[in-house]
Amino acid sequence: MKIILLSGGSGKRLWPLSNEARSKQFLKVLQDEEGNSESMIQRIYRQIRQSRPDADVLIAASEAQSDPIRRQIGAQAETVFEPSRRHTYPAILLAGAYLLDKKQIGEKEVIAVLPVDPYVEQDYFEKLGEMEQALADSGAQVCLLGVRPTYPSEKYGYMTGEPVEGKNYCRVTAYAEKPGLETARRLVEEGGRWNGGVFVMRACFVRELIEKEIGQVSFDRLYEQYDRLPCNSFDYEVSEKNASLVYIPYEGEWKDMGTWNTLTERMEKPDGGFVVRGEACRNTHVINELAIPVVALGLRDMVVVASADGILVSDKHASSYMQRYVEQIDNRPMYEKRQWGEYKVLDIAPCRAGKENSLTKHLHVEAGRSLSYQAHELRDEVWTIIDGKGLFLLDGEIREAVRGDVLYIPKGHKHGMATRDGVDFIEVQLGTELVEEDIERFPWDWDEFLTGTDRA
Amino acid sequence: MKIILLSGGSGKRLWPLSNEARSKQFLKVLQDEEGNSESMIQRIYRQIRQSRPDADVLIAASEAQSDPIRRQIGAQAETVFEPSRRHTYPAILLAGAYLLDKKQIGEKEVIAVLPVDPYVEQDYFEKLGEMEQALADSGAQVCLLGVRPTYPSEKYGYMTGEPVEGKNYCRVTAYAEKPGLETARRLVEEGGRWNGGVFVMRACFVRELIEKEIGQVSFDRLYEQYDRLPCNSFDYEVSEKNASLVYIPYEGEWKDMGTWNTLTERMEKPDGGFVVRGEACRNTHVINELAIPVVALGLRDMVVVASADGILVSDKHASSYMQRYVEQIDNRPMYEKRQWGEYKVLDIAPCRAGKENSLTKHLHVEAGRSLSYQAHELRDEVWTIIDGKGLFLLDGEIREAVRGDVLYIPKGHKHGMATRDGVDFIEVQLGTELVEEDIERFPWDWDEFLTGTDRA
Repeated sequence: MKIILLSGGSGKRLWPLSNEARSKQFLKVLQDEEGNSESMIQRIYRQIRQSRPDADVLIAASEAQSDPIRRQIGAQAETVFEPSRRHTYPAILLAGAYLLDKKQIGEKEVIAVLPVDPYVEQDYFEKLGEMEQALADSGAQVCLLGVRPTYPSEKYGYMTGEPVEGKNYCRVTAYAEKPGLETARRLVEEGGRWNGGVFVMRACFVRELIEKEIGQVSFDRLYEQYDRLPCNSFDYEVSEKNASLVYIPYEGEWKDMGTWNTLTERMEKPDGGFVVRGEACRNTHVINELAIPVVALGLRDMVVVASADGILVSDKHASSYMQRYVEQIDNRPMYEKRQWGEYKVLDIAPCRAGKENSLTKHLHVEAGRSLSYQAHELRDEVWTIIDGKGLFLLDGEIREAVRGDVLYIPKGHKHGMATRDGVDFIEVQLGTELVEEDIERFPWDWDEFLTGTDRA
Repeated sequence: MKIILLSGGSGKRLWPLSNEARSKQFLKVLQDEEGNSESMIQRIYRQIRQSRPDADVLIAASEAQSDPIRRQIGAQAETVFEPSRRHTYPAILLAGAYLLDKKQIGEKEVIAVLPVDPYVEQDYFEKLGEMEQALADSGAQVCLLGVRPTYPSEKYGYMTGEPVEGKNYCRVTAYAEKPGLETARRLVEEGGRWNGGVFVMRACFVRELIEKEIGQVSFDRLYEQYDRLPCNSFDYEVSEKNASLVYIPYEGEWKDMGTWNTLTERMEKPDGGFVVRGEACRNTHVINELAIPVVALGLRDMVVVASADGILVSDKHASSYMQRYVEQIDNRPMYEKRQWGEYKVLDIAPCRAGKENSLTKHLHVEAGRSLSYQAHELRDEVWTIIDGKGLFLLDGEIREAVRGDVLYIPKGHKHGMATRDGVDFIEVQLGTELVEEDIERFPWDWDEFLTGTDRA
């Protein structure tokens, strides 16, 4: 069995912890059996490995997730990167084309597509075998997982099924994606099932879908034409349109961790970070990534989350409606974890006159890492080293930089930094447009300088 | 009539907007008749001036309030500064000694002491005349204001009174300062009155109190011995002990603005700063002084306040119990308004090894102002000018500093800055102990450089 793990999702649903640069599946808000914090993607990857040690897992993600995937899953993770953010239908086709074209898997191979964000126990993964068997027995094109609804949600797909005698699967007789509240209520009453977003199908069916779109099974061609594929969910394009569906019922625990309301139910500790709590708080979670305290008094059924990007104060139920409000906010990311370390924006100050601005950051480069050799067209930078030391590269010249050193980088000049032991500095940017995109990168090989240190 | 306006109060009760450096009475959270924002002290000073244009007003405050008083009330404000923070009893005696000794007021003059923090309408000040009359008619030592209680608070003093025939005042027959809840309930039922904290008395009575403490009426002596005076409220020392009290009943609006719960009732707008609010919030105030957004969803009866010092998320009623939780927090002030401008702490970073630290600030020096000529024993500083320009003074040498300049100040070196048009810079401090107290100030006269600009 080939497993495609869909690492998609908007950066807004767990705002302010998630942002464009830090998707929700990488937030370390869960705990493994030993009590170590882990992210959604780490949990599900670990669970898949436990349940099916021999399965090939391919992670379908965006290029921006390359850093966190390598950081959290390790270098062994096989990945396919989408050229742009679209929807589950194009993402599944691209991953399928990768398996068929690049990995040359057989037509009869079974592909299981799993979403990254449900919180489930180990029995969920045991269902994959039953789904494979149901696919073979039924001759259906797709076998789905039928989750028992816990409330009439308008966010899911609903399946009406007919049991097949002597079998553990049901044939899907009707499918309704994201129905209105009234229909959802009726479907729940009539024993309808949520589509859990797991798709088990044969490679030849995926081949047919790809051929329908671009006439041939070529990964490179699909990659090129990616932006012309329908920007739609696999459910709209296939589940709702396809007559040949079966599902395996699933009675176990299944929580969509896409909202604060559902995610906090899975968190072991109610508080994270610098939190002072009055004794009268109930069913309230407070997560604070800032250096200043959050004081929480007399709160009921609330979630409070503070990060460099913003502060959410929400009734837990109301947090499901957050997305539309967060979309009004058009701020740049104030915190990012990168391959080389991390940065935090400390201050953004437009000048009182003229078009000049300044932006101040705290950067931390990890031991054995380096910043790319780069230049900016629209800004000067001043770096003040506040901790550790590194090698500073300016226009081809290398010098040692230690705590207390001040480095001036005029616009247009190439610069870089590498460190064996880790280095922190305050960067003051001065210019007209102070954006991450104002950067030109140049090749530079730091390997001989960094040898002997752990670059893992 | 001489009016003493007591500008006391802890910095914690309106945390995180108030801190040691920014007392609640200076927060501009109210609005005047024209819709301009004003602080508690501005409002009450304006109301006194409207009601009694001829009264002499003396503001009793701490030295730390000198800057904000001059900024908010203006240079005409007469002030007396306490040598240390104590309580209302020593503060009233010191202000009284100032009037008797330094201003040589007559024995028969009437002194009215007013607290800075009740939210009242103009009729409150009209009562001062009635209180003066009641003092004369009754021969009592102190005339108080008897506020009609709205609930059985444990925070106030309660007066039981006996009406005097044909007069509008009552003789106080029993006085209970901060009783328990049960007693408070009984007193409210029996028609008891809150002591509104207004004391009208003759100068000779204040003289007696001072003489009882230090044997003579000398402002300088009282100032010297200030720390030996009882650290107690005027209510404990006088109202509760003194048999000769009357009060004038007051039926008008009276709100103690010492808690977020009561203060928000007086705020015209529910939101301040960068706030995104879901439509389902009710009776909720959100004040955000940070540059990042606060998203508020589904909140009921809440107050949310975010500042550089911290974030409060509280049920309005529970906010009255804030003080004990905020006292657990021992952070340095992260924002201060000063005579020369303001600063914000952006980052505090201890080094991974050793005892070194770094602290990064954004400072703004206002047009026509200067930083004191100073030196630090335990830190180097790096200043990067990000806006405007100024004159930079280092060890007696003056040079112009403009946007983009980087100034390095090694420990022990004297430095200062003055500006005609305003200047902003990022300061990176590097050293072992990075505290405001590590400063030695030296005389320097900037006047000739700043001439021609408005220094008001």
